[in-house]
This record gives sequence, C-alpha cells and structure tokens, in this order.
Amino acid sequence: MNNTTPLLAITMGDPAGVGPEIALKAVSTIKPPLQSSTLIIGNLDILQKTALLVSVSQQLHSVSQTADMRPGNINIVDVREPGLLEFVIGKPQPQCGLAAYNYIIKGIEMALAGQVDAIVTCPINKEALKMAGILYPGHTEIFADKTHSPHYSMMFACDNVYVVHVTTHVSLKQAIRMITQERILEHTRLLNEALKNLGIPLPRIAIAGLNPHAGENGLFGDEELLHIRPAVEQAVNEGINASGPYPPDTVFMRAFSGEFDGIVSMLHDHGFVALKSRNFDDGVNSTLGLPIIRTSVGHGTAYDIAGKGIASEKSLIAALHAAQQMALHRRHTM
Amino acid sequence: MNNTTPLLAITMGDPAGVGPEIALKAVSTIKPPLQSSTLIIGNLDILQKTALLVSVSQQLHSVSQTADMRPGNINIVDVREPGLLEFVIGKPQPQCGLAAYNYIIKGIEMALAGQVDAIVTCPINKEALKMAGILYPGHTEIFADKTHSPHYSMMFACDNVYVVHVTTHVSLKQAIRMITQERILEHTRLLNEALKNLGIPLPRIAIAGLNPHAGENGLFGDEELLHIRPAVEQAVNEGINASGPYPPDTVFMRAFSGEFDGIVSMLHDHGFVALKSRNFDDGVNSTLGLPIIRTSVGHGTAYDIAGKGIASEKSLIAALHAAQQMALHRRHTM
Repeated sequence: MNNTTPLLAITMGDPAGVGPEIALKAVSTIKPPLQSSTLIIGNLDILQKTALLVSVSQQLHSVSQTADMRPGNINIVDVREPGLLEFVIGKPQPQCGLAAYNYIIKGIEMALAGQVDAIVTCPINKEALKMAGILYPGHTEIFADKTHSPHYSMMFACDNVYVVHVTTHVSLKQAIRMITQERILEHTRLLNEALKNLGIPLPRIAIAGLNPHAGENGLFGDEELLHIRPAVEQAVNEGINASGPYPPDTVFMRAFSGEFDGIVSMLHDHGFVALKSRNFDDGVNSTLGLPIIRTSVGHGTAYDIAGKGIASEKSLIAALHAAQQMALHRRHTM
Repeated sequence: MNNTTPLLAITMGDPAGVGPEIALKAVSTIKPPLQSSTLIIGNLDILQKTALLVSVSQQLHSVSQTADMRPGNINIVDVREPGLLEFVIGKPQPQCGLAAYNYIIKGIEMALAGQVDAIVTCPINKEALKMAGILYPGHTEIFADKTHSPHYSMMFACDNVYVVHVTTHVSLKQAIRMITQERILEHTRLLNEALKNLGIPLPRIAIAGLNPHAGENGLFGDEELLHIRPAVEQAVNEGINASGPYPPDTVFMRAFSGEFDGIVSMLHDHGFVALKSRNFDDGVNSTLGLPIIRTSVGHGTAYDIAGKGIASEKSLIAALHAAQQMALHRRHTM
C-alpha cells in the first residue's frame, strides 16, 4: 500500500470457467510496475496446472501477506478448498461455486483491511453459486452486502462510454414505478463520481428518457416531465454536467460518437441493447457506491471454451487498468 | 404494367429536403431495365433545377400517363403546386408540406388504379405537414388511411435483419397494456409474409421478450408467459418458423450475426436502439399490410445538407430494389 503503484487483487472466479487462464495470461502480460503489484486470489494447484496450459513462464509464488510478494513472480493468495480436488472444466458445480465465492470473500476482507487497493473479479456462475447454497444473483450483490453498501450501481463501460441503469432485474411494470427523481439522482451522482475518478474532470452525462422519443413533451408518457427532467435540473444544480432527458434510441449512439462520457439509462434493455451492439465482452464493469474499488471483466465464465487456453485476457487487462486508475485517483483525493 | 420489370413510382418528398436530389441521383444511377420503369412524382421545375445541381445528364420528360414514359429519359409525373413557386431549402414550410402530401396522394391513386406496381417514398417532414394543416404523423398513417388498411406495420431493414414493432409511439405504460397475443401474432404474420415476398422461403422469425431476460420464467414480469409465448406457439401452429421469446438485449445481435431473418420487437426502443447502432440511415423501410407495395428510405429530410447535392442516394436505391423484388413476387403469386 505504500508503494506508488496501487496493489490489485484478482479473484480467480469459477474454477470451471475461463477465470484461471485469463488471470494468469493477464498478469503475465501486463508490464512490471503493475505486474508486481497484482496478485491472484485463488487455488494454487489449479493455477499451477493452468500455467502449463497457457505457457506462463513466471514462477507462481504463494503469499500469505502482501509484504511477501516477489517481483518477477506471479503472486498467489492460495485459498484452499478441500472439496475442490475433483471437478470438471466447463459446467456449473457446487464445489466450484463455493470456491469462487470464497475468493471473493477473501478479496473483500483484504480490501476492507487496506491490504489491497482494489479487487478485479473474474467471472462466476450464478447456477454454481446456487448449487453451493449461495443465493446471491451475482458479484454486485455480494460486494454490496459484505461492505454494507445500500446505494450502489453497476457501471458498464464499452468503447469509452460509461453506462449506469436506474432499474435492472425487475419487470418492466416495476421498473416504471421505480423511475423516481431520487433514484435517478443517486445513479447520476455515482456515475459522475466514478468518471471523475477515472480522470474526467467534468464528465458529460446524458440522462436518457424512459418513453419513446423521451415522451415527446408528455405526448407518450409523463415520467420525463414528472421525474426525469427534475432529476436533470437537480443534478445541474449540484454542479454535475448533466443534460437530458434524451430519446433512448439515439442517445447511446451519440455517446459512442463522442458527445457524452456517461449515460444514465432508465431500463436494462435500453442500455444493454446498445452496449451489446458494441465490443461488450471486451468491456469493463465496475460496482459504484462501495467503500472499496471493484472492477470486473465484461464477459461470463465462457464454459464452452474454458480449459482450452484460448480465452482472451483483454477485458481483464482493461479491468486491471481501470482499477489502477481509480485507486490512484482515490489515493490522491484522500 | 405488362412489361417484365415492375413499374415503380418515387414520390419526391419535401421539396426543401434532400428528396429531389436523391430521387434524381438514384434514377440516373440505376441500370436500364429498372431505370426505364421508374418514374418520379414531383414538381418538374424543382427537379429541372436540381438536375443541374447534381449534374444529371438524362433529359427530364413530363408524362401524364405511364404509357408515355420514354426510355433513356427521367420520367416525371408533374404535380403542379401554384403556391410552391417560393420556398427556401432546409426548413419546414407549409407549401412544402402540402406539396409533399400531394405527391403521396398521387402515388397512392396511381398504385390503387394499377398504374404502378409500387411506391417508393422520399422523406417528408412532420412539422411541415402540420404547418399545412395535414395532421398525419407520417407516411405510414397516410398510406394506411388512404388505402383503408386497419392492420399494418412498419418494417425496418438494416444489414439483412428485418424488424417490426408491436408497439411504437405510445407511452411505455400503454405499450405494456398493448402486448397481447393477437397483436403479436398480427405483426408476426405481416413480417413472415413480407420476408417471403422478399424471397426467403421460410423466414426465421425471432419473437423478442418484453421484460429484462425475457422475464426469466416469470421472475421479472409475466407478459412472456401470458401473451408472448402463446403467440409464438400459435405462430408455429400456423406454419411460421417462429421462436422465442428471447431476451431483448441479445436477440438483435444474434440476428445481425445471421441467426434470424426477422425480429418481432415489443417496444420502440428495443428495436430502434439496436437498429440505430447499425447503418440505419442506409436501411430500407416498408409498410406491411397495405393493398399496395410501399418502401421508403431509412433517413429523414436532412435539412442541414439539403440543396448541396451531397446527400447519398444509397438508401433510396436499396428501397427501389426492395420494392422491385416485392412487386415481382406479388406478380408471381397472383
């Protein structure tokens, strides 16, 4: 924590997925100052085997505290799972769900204790978690719960556009009821803060509408007039460079063309239809509103290609760089 | 009508927009059999001036009936507007709205009378129509009304994917209420028929969900279980190669990757967020469910570049080819 480069911890993710291979490929690829400040939280045996698969030349070194980290080695915080001796690559299994969960818990503990500056997560599988009796729908909820963070938001980044969603995994009927000035503002503030942490001094934030054409002045729905416009005005009053509400069908492309840095999307399938039309799998996700920094790869466990050594580490490297930047910024402003 | 190549009529669109220039550029560019079977319904004076602007070498020839059409010339059905002597390029004006409307009416009359096989429309402006006291929101409603077609749908095509929307210009609240088995089926049948007319023998039609993840089996909303799934089953029973409901955030990209020919989208901003992430302005639109064939360019009047001769005729040429294909198919099946 006292060296210049922030210390990052990668959680290995589901052992049966692409996590182990992309973690090793990423750490062996990144350049020295970052490389020697990044450790992997996972299972040493699995990582040793995976190192042969992906031809990683550096030695794997097990550390129990960050002071033991060796430059030039790949440093591993070895979380042993007796039940993990047997599993197969490429499908959800309870022992893998439990192991993946334990890496996350270890990472959160280390970050909360100030041993690492940020957590970068490899993919886990909801089904495997469920088989292990762990009923969180995903990383985000685990991080929010274990860090006691009631107000949080996932930020998805792709092609230099950063998107938060005011509503996600709820029915469309329920989503409409959740579009309130306060909830929009909460997500706008989190996005604004995160973009400043990423080095954008005055982020240009577009707040999208809910209805077609953003309601066309009340003609197709009044949520823009009643809730979204007041949220834009309040955000501007707070010094945020926000504008809107914009028609959902064009605002994302305007951002991808360079007009905005971030978008506050009202619905899961406004933002995700747009994001998935781009290089979404290479993108970086981040949980905002936590006391610790957490970024993530944009893709899932990719069971179909796991264990073949062909999974790309590109998204993980992008997530490492984003975490590094956020950690540096946080340190400067503390 | 008795020659092999179907006869197409281009309506010139708003005189103050890019319509006149793209109409002339398109007709002068397309190859002879199609060229000599395409006429423009518009104002001869404006088209003469525009011909100089875009350096069209062919002579413009005014015809009062299609039998008078001259091969090698650009044939014009001259709809004279006394009030149109004065207007400026690049903004909505009542005389231009009225003129654009009259070209459409003339086109519909000719198509209903069997004088032409299809209408291909250049862009009009809603504001200009309104200034002229014509309160239709767009082409689609004019065509539906004047041909007495209660069940119609706009089909948007882009990168070989064809999309219809079950709901469009209504509030999201209203759209949810409009998701019924019958309405979904109506749009599915129209899309299936249109794709067959475009030469796809058994179109692969994906029916999208309404809720995030298509409701995840009722977890986030029940419209998929109550209305959409029964519509898919009924469509299959009718011999349509339909499947779904699919999560809205991935179904469009799956189609663009070649998995489906057509998509039935529940919401304006599922389909349009996806379409506008592609080469939408180069796309082709078509109104389904009419007794006549109508295709259209994908873009608007583009007032900002009108009168400069730089507007691309690409979308109009694509719309001409689509209309030709639909007309040929209709003739074969009559």
